[in-house]
Amino acid sequence: MDHTFAIGIDIGGTNTDIGLVRSDGICIARLNFRTTDFTTAETFVDRLCSTIGILLKDSDSSVLQGIGIGAPNGNSLTGCIEEASNLPQLSNLPLKRILEERMRLPVAVGNDANAAALGEMVYGGAKHLQDFVTITLGTGVGSGIVINHRLLLGEHGNAGEIGHSILVPDGRSCSCGRRGCVEEYASARGICKTFIKLRNATGNYNGMLHGIDDSQLTPKLIAEAAQQGDALSIATYQRTGYYLGLTCANVVSHIAPQKIFLMGGPMQAGSLIMNPTQQSFAENLLMIYRGQVSIEITHLPANDAAIMGAAALLQWTMDNRTLNS
Amino acid sequence: MDHTFAIGIDIGGTNTDIGLVRSDGICIARLNFRTTDFTTAETFVDRLCSTIGILLKDSDSSVLQGIGIGAPNGNSLTGCIEEASNLPQLSNLPLKRILEERMRLPVAVGNDANAAALGEMVYGGAKHLQDFVTITLGTGVGSGIVINHRLLLGEHGNAGEIGHSILVPDGRSCSCGRRGCVEEYASARGICKTFIKLRNATGNYNGMLHGIDDSQLTPKLIAEAAQQGDALSIATYQRTGYYLGLTCANVVSHIAPQKIFLMGGPMQAGSLIMNPTQQSFAENLLMIYRGQVSIEITHLPANDAAIMGAAALLQWTMDNRTLNS
Repeated sequence: MDHTFAIGIDIGGTNTDIGLVRSDGICIARLNFRTTDFTTAETFVDRLCSTIGILLKDSDSSVLQGIGIGAPNGNSLTGCIEEASNLPQLSNLPLKRILEERMRLPVAVGNDANAAALGEMVYGGAKHLQDFVTITLGTGVGSGIVINHRLLLGEHGNAGEIGHSILVPDGRSCSCGRRGCVEEYASARGICKTFIKLRNATGNYNGMLHGIDDSQLTPKLIAEAAQQGDALSIATYQRTGYYLGLTCANVVSHIAPQKIFLMGGPMQAGSLIMNPTQQSFAENLLMIYRGQVSIEITHLPANDAAIMGAAALLQWTMDNRTLNS
Repeated sequence: MDHTFAIGIDIGGTNTDIGLVRSDGICIARLNFRTTDFTTAETFVDRLCSTIGILLKDSDSSVLQGIGIGAPNGNSLTGCIEEASNLPQLSNLPLKRILEERMRLPVAVGNDANAAALGEMVYGGAKHLQDFVTITLGTGVGSGIVINHRLLLGEHGNAGEIGHSILVPDGRSCSCGRRGCVEEYASARGICKTFIKLRNATGNYNGMLHGIDDSQLTPKLIAEAAQQGDALSIATYQRTGYYLGLTCANVVSHIAPQKIFLMGGPMQAGSLIMNPTQQSFAENLLMIYRGQVSIEITHLPANDAAIMGAAALLQWTMDNRTLNS
């Protein structure tokens, strides 16, 4: 069987991942660099192009379909990355136009979280679903909403910012300038904030993560400590699951999807985060929805999900299925 | 011009309103009775049929298209009123089948809040909108979501319960058995609860509503007191507007509609509730949505909005435009 290929690029607040994705969804090569190393759009784009070049060096360009890019606030209607609180150096960059000129390939730009939803639909667990939502936990919390097998974009291409719905009125300060957003409770940063808050409330924490500087904390470290029995770390994930389950219950009250898929780094904690999330979801779900909707971890391989989503975004665009509903 | 007619029925937790609606949306006759006077489904249906009979007495039945019914948890896919926390005596009643047999007319049953959205689309301010949301404040808080000019129902016909999204985690106890639902802050009951809470916090309230028993409080009484300068009543509406604006901002983070229409009894307080709602919406809206979405009071006449919505539900069904997206 002959395959075509696409470049899938996930630009995150912390890392930029670039992969060569086969048309059956297998990521056959990948490279990455730190987004935060580049403080201007120009140096970032230079590095992006040179990395794509390295990845394509040994490839047959005749079967390369193009480049799909998922980015925070990437807008598939304009081809720009718009105001992105996690990515200030790339704000309002017309990435589609710039890359098409430099790489001489078709380029599709979209919201990274919408790309993830397309990845789930094209390659993952949502192939046969009409209505579903994906929520991606990372530096921020992104979401993609599919209704009637179509991505919900809204008139301006920016629907589906569930991570910036306000979960706790007057709650934690968010990078978006408001308070209490889901993102401040369920993102990597949010999980660390919860740990710090619980630790400070305890006063006499002397567990496995004692002495580690707050700036060095990560969800992965906290998960490892929890898996080795650190009570405060376990409590951190229980609290995170509470917030995440509550968020999912609120999504259902709006959209009533058939499934919600969770993905992103913190979900690699597995049952540590999924069990309390499922419990909170069950407790906070309005009764009429019980038994109608479930939460699952993405069916995409954790390391490649974002890249596959970006490739799915290109494939979707190439199929002439307009992203504009 | 020859008109056809439809019976529009709005079954609320408190009152049931029945109107004869002309095809241009004008409600030419109306009757009502108290829903709460009927503790069984059978006596309620008897009264419903006799009231329809009175309304039709002098009408030409040849131009009567049928009966549209909006009810809490009315499900247009099943024709039933399903579990409705505000309407226990009618739970799981197959109202469409029962009324079609008794009245020998086509009957459409739907969620009252979805009916309101259809009313706004057929007769009101949403005629030319692709994506909009209506939020109805009454005994509860209902909502209807239209995406791509189609009512969002979800697989099971019960999408759009924004009133039961959780606004304040671990907040006020809701009739649905959970805590902190929008409904407990923005419904008629919620407004009264806010008044009582503010009054109890003050301790020495001696204003216009002093001495009125809590069970006698209504949003209308509080609005009248506010309009005459009662500081606590003004504060009650300011707080209500805060909650409502926050709710609308969260709706936008999910769906990014073009407009949100507010309707229902408490909205008759006009600027008293709209000003703080607009302010809270502006403050709580994620920056990327600013200037893209507005909140308006329904364009439907306040007294007839629910009846017109129910008639629109029938018209919509008769047009063979399936409600099931």
